[in-house]
Amino acid sequence: MRFIENFYDGARVSDVYLVKTKNAALTKNGKEYLNVILQDRTGQVDAKVWEPNSPGISDFDVLDYVYVEGNVTVYNGSNQLSIQRLRVAKEGSYDPKNYLPVSSRPAEEMEASLSQLIKSVKNPYLSRLLNIIFMEDADFHKKFMLHSAAKSVHHGYVGGLAEHTLSVAGICDDFARRYPDLHRDLLVTAALCHDIGKVRELTAFPRNDYSDEGQLIGHIVIGYQRITEVAGSIEGFPPTLAAELGHCILAHHGELEFGSPKKPALMEAMALSFADNVDAKLETMREALDAADKNGKSTEGDGWIGFNRLIDSNMRRTSSES
Amino acid sequence: MRFIENFYDGARVSDVYLVKTKNAALTKNGKEYLNVILQDRTGQVDAKVWEPNSPGISDFDVLDYVYVEGNVTVYNGSNQLSIQRLRVAKEGSYDPKNYLPVSSRPAEEMEASLSQLIKSVKNPYLSRLLNIIFMEDADFHKKFMLHSAAKSVHHGYVGGLAEHTLSVAGICDDFARRYPDLHRDLLVTAALCHDIGKVRELTAFPRNDYSDEGQLIGHIVIGYQRITEVAGSIEGFPPTLAAELGHCILAHHGELEFGSPKKPALMEAMALSFADNVDAKLETMREALDAADKNGKSTEGDGWIGFNRLIDSNMRRTSSES
Amino acid sequence: MRFIENFYDGARVSDVYLVKTKNAALTKNGKEYLNVILQDRTGQVDAKVWEPNSPGISDFDVLDYVYVEGNVTVYNGSNQLSIQRLRVAKEGSYDPKNYLPVSSRPAEEMEASLSQLIKSVKNPYLSRLLNIIFMEDADFHKKFMLHSAAKSVHHGYVGGLAEHTLSVAGICDDFARRYPDLHRDLLVTAALCHDIGKVRELTAFPRNDYSDEGQLIGHIVIGYQRITEVAGSIEGFPPTLAAELGHCILAHHGELEFGSPKKPALMEAMALSFADNVDAKLETMREALDAADKNGKSTEGDGWIGFNRLIDSNMRRTSSES
Amino acid sequence: MRFIENFYDGARVSDVYLVKTKNAALTKNGKEYLNVILQDRTGQVDAKVWEPNSPGISDFDVLDYVYVEGNVTVYNGSNQLSIQRLRVAKEGSYDPKNYLPVSSRPAEEMEASLSQLIKSVKNPYLSRLLNIIFMEDADFHKKFMLHSAAKSVHHGYVGGLAEHTLSVAGICDDFARRYPDLHRDLLVTAALCHDIGKVRELTAFPRNDYSDEGQLIGHIVIGYQRITEVAGSIEGFPPTLAAELGHCILAHHGELEFGSPKKPALMEAMALSFADNVDAKLETMREALDAADKNGKSTEGDGWIGFNRLIDSNMRRTSSES
Amino acid sequence: MRFIENFYDGARVSDVYLVKTKNAALTKNGKEYLNVILQDRTGQVDAKVWEPNSPGISDFDVLDYVYVEGNVTVYNGSNQLSIQRLRVAKEGSYDPKNYLPVSSRPAEEMEASLSQLIKSVKNPYLSRLLNIIFMEDADFHKKFMLHSAAKSVHHGYVGGLAEHTLSVAGICDDFARRYPDLHRDLLVTAALCHDIGKVRELTAFPRNDYSDEGQLIGHIVIGYQRITEVAGSIEGFPPTLAAELGHCILAHHGELEFGSPKKPALMEAMALSFADNVDAKLETMREALDAADKNGKSTEGDGWIGFNRLIDSNMRRTSSES
Amino acid sequence: MRFIENFYDGARVSDVYLVKTKNAALTKNGKEYLNVILQDRTGQVDAKVWEPNSPGISDFDVLDYVYVEGNVTVYNGSNQLSIQRLRVAKEGSYDPKNYLPVSSRPAEEMEASLSQLIKSVKNPYLSRLLNIIFMEDADFHKKFMLHSAAKSVHHGYVGGLAEHTLSVAGICDDFARRYPDLHRDLLVTAALCHDIGKVRELTAFPRNDYSDEGQLIGHIVIGYQRITEVAGSIEGFPPTLAAELGHCILAHHGELEFGSPKKPALMEAMALSFADNVDAKLETMREALDAADKNGKSTEGDGWIGFNRLIDSNMRRTSSES
Repeated sequence: MRFIENFYDGARVSDVYLVKTKNAALTKNGKEYLNVILQDRTGQVDAKVWEPNSPGISDFDVLDYVYVEGNVTVYNGSNQLSIQRLRVAKEGSYDPKNYLPVSSRPAEEMEASLSQLIKSVKNPYLSRLLNIIFMEDADFHKKFMLHSAAKSVHHGYVGGLAEHTLSVAGICDDFARRYPDLHRDLLVTAALCHDIGKVRELTAFPRNDYSDEGQLIGHIVIGYQRITEVAGSIEGFPPTLAAELGHCILAHHGELEFGSPKKPALMEAMALSFADNVDAKLETMREALDAADKNGKSTEGDGWIGFNRLIDSNMRRTSSES
Repeated sequence: MRFIENFYDGARVSDVYLVKTKNAALTKNGKEYLNVILQDRTGQVDAKVWEPNSPGISDFDVLDYVYVEGNVTVYNGSNQLSIQRLRVAKEGSYDPKNYLPVSSRPAEEMEASLSQLIKSVKNPYLSRLLNIIFMEDADFHKKFMLHSAAKSVHHGYVGGLAEHTLSVAGICDDFARRYPDLHRDLLVTAALCHDIGKVRELTAFPRNDYSDEGQLIGHIVIGYQRITEVAGSIEGFPPTLAAELGHCILAHHGELEFGSPKKPALMEAMALSFADNVDAKLETMREALDAADKNGKSTEGDGWIGFNRLIDSNMRRTSSES
Repeated sequence: MRFIENFYDGARVSDVYLVKTKNAALTKNGKEYLNVILQDRTGQVDAKVWEPNSPGISDFDVLDYVYVEGNVTVYNGSNQLSIQRLRVAKEGSYDPKNYLPVSSRPAEEMEASLSQLIKSVKNPYLSRLLNIIFMEDADFHKKFMLHSAAKSVHHGYVGGLAEHTLSVAGICDDFARRYPDLHRDLLVTAALCHDIGKVRELTAFPRNDYSDEGQLIGHIVIGYQRITEVAGSIEGFPPTLAAELGHCILAHHGELEFGSPKKPALMEAMALSFADNVDAKLETMREALDAADKNGKSTEGDGWIGFNRLIDSNMRRTSSES
Repeated sequence: MRFIENFYDGARVSDVYLVKTKNAALTKNGKEYLNVILQDRTGQVDAKVWEPNSPGISDFDVLDYVYVEGNVTVYNGSNQLSIQRLRVAKEGSYDPKNYLPVSSRPAEEMEASLSQLIKSVKNPYLSRLLNIIFMEDADFHKKFMLHSAAKSVHHGYVGGLAEHTLSVAGICDDFARRYPDLHRDLLVTAALCHDIGKVRELTAFPRNDYSDEGQLIGHIVIGYQRITEVAGSIEGFPPTLAAELGHCILAHHGELEFGSPKKPALMEAMALSFADNVDAKLETMREALDAADKNGKSTEGDGWIGFNRLIDSNMRRTSSES
Repeated sequence: MRFIENFYDGARVSDVYLVKTKNAALTKNGKEYLNVILQDRTGQVDAKVWEPNSPGISDFDVLDYVYVEGNVTVYNGSNQLSIQRLRVAKEGSYDPKNYLPVSSRPAEEMEASLSQLIKSVKNPYLSRLLNIIFMEDADFHKKFMLHSAAKSVHHGYVGGLAEHTLSVAGICDDFARRYPDLHRDLLVTAALCHDIGKVRELTAFPRNDYSDEGQLIGHIVIGYQRITEVAGSIEGFPPTLAAELGHCILAHHGELEFGSPKKPALMEAMALSFADNVDAKLETMREALDAADKNGKSTEGDGWIGFNRLIDSNMRRTSSES
Repeated sequence: MRFIENFYDGARVSDVYLVKTKNAALTKNGKEYLNVILQDRTGQVDAKVWEPNSPGISDFDVLDYVYVEGNVTVYNGSNQLSIQRLRVAKEGSYDPKNYLPVSSRPAEEMEASLSQLIKSVKNPYLSRLLNIIFMEDADFHKKFMLHSAAKSVHHGYVGGLAEHTLSVAGICDDFARRYPDLHRDLLVTAALCHDIGKVRELTAFPRNDYSDEGQLIGHIVIGYQRITEVAGSIEGFPPTLAAELGHCILAHHGELEFGSPKKPALMEAMALSFADNVDAKLETMREALDAADKNGKSTEGDGWIGFNRLIDSNMRRTSSES
């Protein structure tokens, strides 16, 4: 297919793209037309349907995959696609992976890693809880494996939530080996569950935006509520253990001003908040450096790629001397 | 009875007091004795049981009401009670109100006020929710009416939680009259429920200290969880309404750094956070000024009673000129 | 008349508008022309006078109401008006309300409400002070009723200052009923006077911008100075009462970092700072939600209207379920 | 006279001291006695009048200078004076300088320096204003020369306000020489007036505590009000100049959170805020180092004298190597 | 020469300019061309080389001085230069001062002032250190005299570092006269050395951007390292004196959050941090007011020139009344 | 030996203790005596030498180990030792481990671990640098292995610096395995060197207090200076690598306000700052929980051991349910 990053002035387009937004508007003469943004995994393009009522234009909606025919022109320095024909594409006639950013870690490997971590938890109550949440709820399982970990910032791609979760759980596993005072089963369980609320906080790809519940309640409390509910359904689950697990979820942002209603008061909660933070920061730097490599920012001049708001610093890739 | 504030050097005591703390210790000669703190609503006194194994001293525990006989002496400038006889007092042989600070608002009046506010809510779902929480759960109802609103700070007395809740709900009612855009039923329901988590966050009087759940989870999330649970049990309860009510509870501290995991995003949540704050601040000032009147600090010198950490200012009572 | 929001490419205009700015400039060929911004209550438009010295163009100034004839063209995606004829409009030939945003509360109702609140103050000194400031100074009275409460943010329209002041005084009145320790007369007087300095801090409509005095001194100190001056002119005015009223004015922003040189140290000052803040925040939300309704932002998508800097949160209108 | 720092166990005292506080109390047997704190410039001592109604004890008040006879004993490690005889001392029978900390700069020198700075201001309006405030108001002049610049912190001694003011004005004079864009007359006038409100914010020695007006209004606004009033009384005083001078006073703390209702917006206001701050900080360090020399803290160990809250650091005297 | 601020539509250009940036790009038809930004001391202009391989276009690089011939057109409202001929200019065929902003203080005068300050330091070790750093290292000396004090903000011109350094040293000299406790030689030495690290933190003009070392280490630590190294090379240099001088360099930003790893703990360090700050702030204001005069912002309207981020306030020039 | 925690009223003492402080004082009768604090690893005790000039009392100094004979009495509720005989103890007549808190990790194991980590670094320059610093400088090596990591807070015992350093390096090793973008050799080298400045910032045990250099310069810059010096002495050491290593040291506190003059701009610097922080926080919690176990605070009541300033929260040990 012709990816959007390869569009040029005068190109003829006939391919399937994802509809990101769609708005009706009026020309100065009062004629209706449509403003559309199309997307694939290489970028987005402004498109216009000047004759929305012509027979070649079928009905379509935001987030539909549509087959379009049209011409590229350049307007105000940017590409613009004039659409002459458009119809909703049949499932199977396109590969969704071409339209969304995807984790570089293979899905099967992440499945295996998740399964292994869950099996490694020996405490019967925590083991049961993990199985109910991740394995017996097929709908959740599927969503969890495909979800993004964030709207933007870091891990903002298909599979990002699983990748981030496994990474945090792995770091927690390392911490547990180094600090024998840490209760490994509690810590690993909390790590696996810490962001499950994001499945409801953010809508799934391709929309990937905050849900109403996400904005009103937030993934921290949503996740806490889910683990409390599941713990309550398991016979004999010790209430203190449930409260400790709940505390780890609530405190995982580490500071009140980052949205945690409690500061870490248990060693496991403290360890989890560090694991979450270190993965977020290192992945943010990695993604920013990779992006700079791609767009050439890191090779022009002196290698410094500019100020990053999350890292709160300019940064560059480490030299190859070490 | 002889209240603790009236103890003096040489006084003979034979009355019932509340045991606040009890610790075994050794004299320099290695003999065991007991350090005890006794309390009534006028204050506390150090007491010693020098012969804990004598026949006159029965077994007792912290927070028991005990009948004691002994003598007051002065040690290092403070009263100290030497206990010769001690036994646990029978319920009925003392009036609990003599041992704890109590709201000045009569309980019946608060009952009536609560009942009237609940009746004023016309939305059927919210009305049902309030009835389940406050009226049909007799155990909760009783605890709610007797609970303190805080460990210290403001409303720290029997009935304080109910008094604070009613005051906040009343202010919200006023706001709803002045701002027609506010949904009154949602706002008043949120006001009545905003601190229900405190019944589990703080243990009941006379202990009145943070519970394990209170420290790990906190009253904001406990309260949110309770209203979510009840809303879920009511058939047809609109999920959006449940989320909006939940948001008001979560956001009622107004700022992340005060422990709310969400900032107010709805007008009702904003109004509630102000009502909660204004009642807390004005009551803090009122209690501080009253305490200063009692201990004479407000009349000696110029009337300024000193720096108050919560108000973050020195303060004084307004003159009677206005 | 043809409102600016209805201008379109090719439209012919012949109507009265308000001159917001006017600057002389040179074309590339060195010919002088005028850059003008015209305004009515629906918006603003760039306009050019290409032949400022032609007989059809009279002399005019910023903030004049001018009758213009010209054509609308589109330049860089925005409307632009080419003015061929222009003269200053005669008073009476236009209705000023068409050119400025106006409070939705009728002026007479606000007059009545102000008068009633002033009459309700029984303390003779405070009553006298309010009458001198609001009733006997006709010039101030007129300005106060027409002034905006802010340059932008909230209550930024004709009558906004009066509307905000009355709202704050009303909330204070409610507070005084609920908290008997509050001195109602002092509190209501302070509420009515708290923003009088804005009449000098902001210039009147249509300019509505910070005055030199406003930037150097600020409305808090200007208002304080005015009430001190008036109190000093009233025989027998108790100095302590004057200082207490002054303190309420100085402390009404509640925190030093919001520009109050003193934190509230009296209960009335505390209550006033809350009343001011709650009205500002709820009105900000109301105006933002109304604006979003108007420009369609609240109906497209999920109803969330975007991040608001003053509220420091995204927000949406509460659902109609409650 | 025998200074308080020279009291010892068993010493016999018969001299004049200043009464700092006086409170009636009851012994355990219910007998009235007086708790008194006496002061001279070397320190304070607890004193008791066990027989307040004996013929040798006359009536006296806080801040009286009293002649006392009594014995020193040591109680809980501190000296205590048992007073047997006490009468109010006649003016002239003692030298007030022995009872209060005093500036090390001679009063005449400060007078001369003030007078010279005032004469150096050539702008007729500013010159007139300075003369009215400092020279023609004899009562203010006397108070200003004797006042402390602070309750504690820095320059907390008789003459401290004048010493600090002259120092700040001198630094401003230096700045004006180095930065020709600064208007010297405005800057020096603002420097001389910047703390005049302290004469009303703090009561005079020996009490030296915040006045009611000081707590409610504060020296910044009090000083601003005074210069505005005086400027208003001078015919032809340019209003813009008055506002600029007022702004310098209001902004002299440099930041809103330090109690200035405006941040410096003029170069002179910026320069003044630095001059005020540098004098405060260097004098704080100097006084702390001198005090450490006196009490031996700077010579024991390594010369570091401990954490100072205002400087927000530990500190030591610079070595004599440089 | 024709300065860039005098370019106009249709102008013919044939002069020498400085190349600020140079990037190759493709036209829509895939033909290579060059985007170039040219600069002189009056501003910058976009330029295009449409035929980079034509014989009239020689090879050139960023920061070369180039002789160009071409035409000015207006594109999107801005001037654009189409370059037909271009060659690197020979040194001597242009005056570098025409291409860079330059300090208004003559270089010779700054040389004399530096030399005099160094001579005024009597302590033999400090004197030796200053001579090694400033006088015996000719390469450093030259760079120091030409360097900018900042990338933007204040003193961002040729000679700015020397001008700022001399100004700070002068203020410190004034402070030493007013505060006899200050060790003048240490203070003046620290002032002269406080920003020497900037010679390595910022690359020289015309690039004037952060170096790799500047971003990784920063001028504070670079400068500290240099003075430590030099002190270590001087026989008998007292280690305590070296540490004190080092401390002054490290602490000269005054606060940890401004990048100083230590807060001022010596009086000289405190004085230096104030001198640095006062010069930075007053110069920032001066430059902003001058710029506003130039671009007319200070005369249109009311003289207020807009919010300045460093000053954190709007500002205006003081009136000429004082 | 009789440890100080086992002293009791009337006990007779004849053993060796460490002298922590020693001060001469005068009794009320003007007789000289000595105030001494003695220490062993179980605590400290006040001691008095009432007859410092008696033949049984030899000359001694702070931090000497002294053999004393005397009696314990109780004064103001605390033990006090009256010393009758005292002489400096011979080395070998006591075991230093009885007088200081010591790491629970065996020294040999830490030696082995350090040696292994250094060997694991393959980059020749970094390997050389580590060998020079840790292995070839025997004096430093010995100090490093015995030093404390802090004056108080965490790892405040003999061997604490080595234990903390190895722990941080181990975590960094784990990070390097999980994040392939990290340069392991640079990261591990930085981890091993990050706190070497503490050997000079804090004096060795038993004094263990801030040195003059520590207070003026701080361990971050001291350590940076040392690695720069060593790198400079190694032929061919790449300057960029030296700057990157230096940056990691400078940025290891993560935030300017924690004393780092640079924020992490390289991935290794970011990873190191997290490793340092996680070890500090988990060790702080572990030490606090252990201390609470020892003094019984964690078993009385509900297990919550009280607010910890560094953790900024109350805390408790996790239950054994998990």
